[in-house]
Amino acid sequence: MQYYAGIDIGGTKVYAVVIDEAGCVLGRAKTKIGQENAFEQVVQKIMHTYRGACRDAGIREEDIPAVGLAFPSPIDRVRRIIKHAPNLGWIDLKFSARLKEAFGKPFFVGNDVNMGTFAEYHLGAAKGHISVYGIFVGTGVGGGYILEGKIVRGLAYTAGEIGHTIIKMNGPRCNCGQRGCLEAIAAKSGMIKYIKKQVEKRGKSTLLEKIAPNWRKSLGSSALRKAFQRHDKLVSQALKRSAEAIGVAVGNIISTVGVDAIVLGGGVIEELNAFFLPAIEKSMRKHSFAGAASDVALLEPRLGDDAVALGSAWFVRLPEKQDMLFY
Amino acid sequence: MQYYAGIDIGGTKVYAVVIDEAGCVLGRAKTKIGQENAFEQVVQKIMHTYRGACRDAGIREEDIPAVGLAFPSPIDRVRRIIKHAPNLGWIDLKFSARLKEAFGKPFFVGNDVNMGTFAEYHLGAAKGHISVYGIFVGTGVGGGYILEGKIVRGLAYTAGEIGHTIIKMNGPRCNCGQRGCLEAIAAKSGMIKYIKKQVEKRGKSTLLEKIAPNWRKSLGSSALRKAFQRHDKLVSQALKRSAEAIGVAVGNIISTVGVDAIVLGGGVIEELNAFFLPAIEKSMRKHSFAGAASDVALLEPRLGDDAVALGSAWFVRLPEKQDMLFY
Repeated sequence: MQYYAGIDIGGTKVYAVVIDEAGCVLGRAKTKIGQENAFEQVVQKIMHTYRGACRDAGIREEDIPAVGLAFPSPIDRVRRIIKHAPNLGWIDLKFSARLKEAFGKPFFVGNDVNMGTFAEYHLGAAKGHISVYGIFVGTGVGGGYILEGKIVRGLAYTAGEIGHTIIKMNGPRCNCGQRGCLEAIAAKSGMIKYIKKQVEKRGKSTLLEKIAPNWRKSLGSSALRKAFQRHDKLVSQALKRSAEAIGVAVGNIISTVGVDAIVLGGGVIEELNAFFLPAIEKSMRKHSFAGAASDVALLEPRLGDDAVALGSAWFVRLPEKQDMLFY
Repeated sequence: MQYYAGIDIGGTKVYAVVIDEAGCVLGRAKTKIGQENAFEQVVQKIMHTYRGACRDAGIREEDIPAVGLAFPSPIDRVRRIIKHAPNLGWIDLKFSARLKEAFGKPFFVGNDVNMGTFAEYHLGAAKGHISVYGIFVGTGVGGGYILEGKIVRGLAYTAGEIGHTIIKMNGPRCNCGQRGCLEAIAAKSGMIKYIKKQVEKRGKSTLLEKIAPNWRKSLGSSALRKAFQRHDKLVSQALKRSAEAIGVAVGNIISTVGVDAIVLGGGVIEELNAFFLPAIEKSMRKHSFAGAASDVALLEPRLGDDAVALGSAWFVRLPEKQDMLFY
C-alpha cells in the first residue's frame, strides 16, 4: 500500500492531507500563517503541517513516494516559479531547489483552484462528468477547467481566470484595472463597492453597519448571509447582481467550450447556497444560447476544506502524472 | 497511395476537395445551391460535386476510402442529426441512412466552422500550436476550439458558439434573443442595426446609401470596405465597435481556457484585415488580464475557400479518427 500527501498553501493557513490509493483521507493537519509569510517561513510551516498529517494518519514519511502542493498563484512549470501570489506577497518566486531539499522526494506544484476543481472532478461532486468548470466566489473569483480528466492550463497559465472575463463592457472597475469583469460584479470586493456607492452617493442604508461595522474594509460571507436573511435591501440587490453575473459567465463558458458540469463554490456561494444556486441557474438559462444550458449540471462542491489538498495528493497519485513531477 | 474527399455544404454552395495523404489538394469542384435546398436535392448536389472533385483530381471514387462532410449546423453525432441549419432551413434532420446509401463507404459529418478551424490547426495558419480558437465574423459570428489536435465539441455541441457569449450585459439585442452577445455588436447583422439606428434616430448619413442602396437588408463585406476607405464616419464607427468587441471576446477566451493562438477569419475580417488585425490586437491587450495576451498569436487563416472541405477530408484521413466514422 502506498500513500500520498497533498498540501494546500493559502493566504492564512497551510492545510495538509494524507490519502490512500483510493483517495480516502487518512489524516489531516493545519497550521496558521500570520505575518510570517516569507517563503522560508512558509516552507517551515509546510513541513510542519505535512509531518502533522502523516502522524495523524499513522503513516511514516518514507511510505509516501510523492507530495502535491498547491499555491494561490499561477504556476510556471517550465521556469519553476510561483508567478504571482498576492495573498502571500510573492512575485516570480523560484520554488524548486528549496522544496526539493525540504522533501527529498518527487513533488508537484500546482494552482490551488485547479487542484480543488481537479479533486471535485475525480473524487467529488463532478465525478463521472466529461468536462467541468469550477467557479469559486469569495473576495475574488477563481476558476479551473478540467477536460477529460486533465487540467487545462493554457499558454501563460491563464485558463481558469473566469473572474477576469468581461461580461459588461464599460461596467464597474475591477481591481485588475479592467472594467466589467465578472469579479467586479460578483465577488465580495465588487459587492462592497456597489453597496458603498449606494450608501454614499444615494444616501441608502444597510444593516451591515450594525452586523459588520467594518464592512467597507472586510466583509465576511456570514455577515452577508445575516443581512440577507433580515431582508436588507442593498445586500439583497448586491447578491442578485452577483448571481445574475455568475449566470452570464456560466452561459459564456457553455457557449465557448461546452462543459457538461459547473461546480459552484467559494465562501460567498456556499454560505448562501439556497439563494445562489437557483438564482444562478435562472440567469444561466436566460443568458445562454439556444437551450444549450438545459443539460448542464450545476453542482455544489462536496469536498469542503479538503478539496485543494486532496486534489494535489490525487494528482501525484495518478501514474500518468508521474512524469510531471519535479525532483 | 490513398486519397480522401472533403465536402463543405454551405447555404449557397457545395464545395468539395480531394486530397492526398499529405493533405495536398489534388482536385476541387463547386456547385451552387439556390432555392432547391431540400435535403434530397442537396444530397444530389453533394454527389455531383464530390464526383466533380474526383474527376478534377484524376482519382477514381474507389480509391477514396472515406469522405468527410461539413454542414453549417451543430451535429448531434449520437442521434445522427443535423440539429439546426438556418441557412438551409433544416431542423433535426436525420442524415445517416441517406448519406450511407449515397456514398457506400465510411463517412464523417461535422460542423463547418469546427472543420475549418481543424484545417487551420493541422495544415494552415495555426500549425505547430497546442490549442487554437477560431473566430469567423461574417453575417454572424462562428467559432471552433481545437485543443491538442482534437475538436472540443462540448455537451450539446455548443463549444465554439463564441458569437453568443455575452460581453455587454443589457447591450444591443441579438438575433438569438439575448442582449449584448458578441455577434450583436461585431457581426454584419449587428453593424447594420447600429448604422440604421444612427441614420434613423440621430439623422446621420452614410455613403452606404450610394455604395450599396439595399444595405439595410443585405450588406456585403466589400461595400463595408469601400465605405471605410472613403472615410465614412458611421461605417468606421461600426467597424471600430466590432473590432473592440472581438478583442474583448479574444481576451475572454484567453482568460477562460488559455489558448495559444486565435485564428481570425470570415468575410468581414478578411475583407478588412489591415484594419481589423491591429485593432483587435489593441483591444485584446487592453481587455485581457495581467498581460496574459502577450504571447498569444493572432493569425489570419491561410486556407481560403478550401478550409472547411480540407479539414473534413483531413479529419477522415487521420487513423485515430477512423472509429468516429459513420457507416
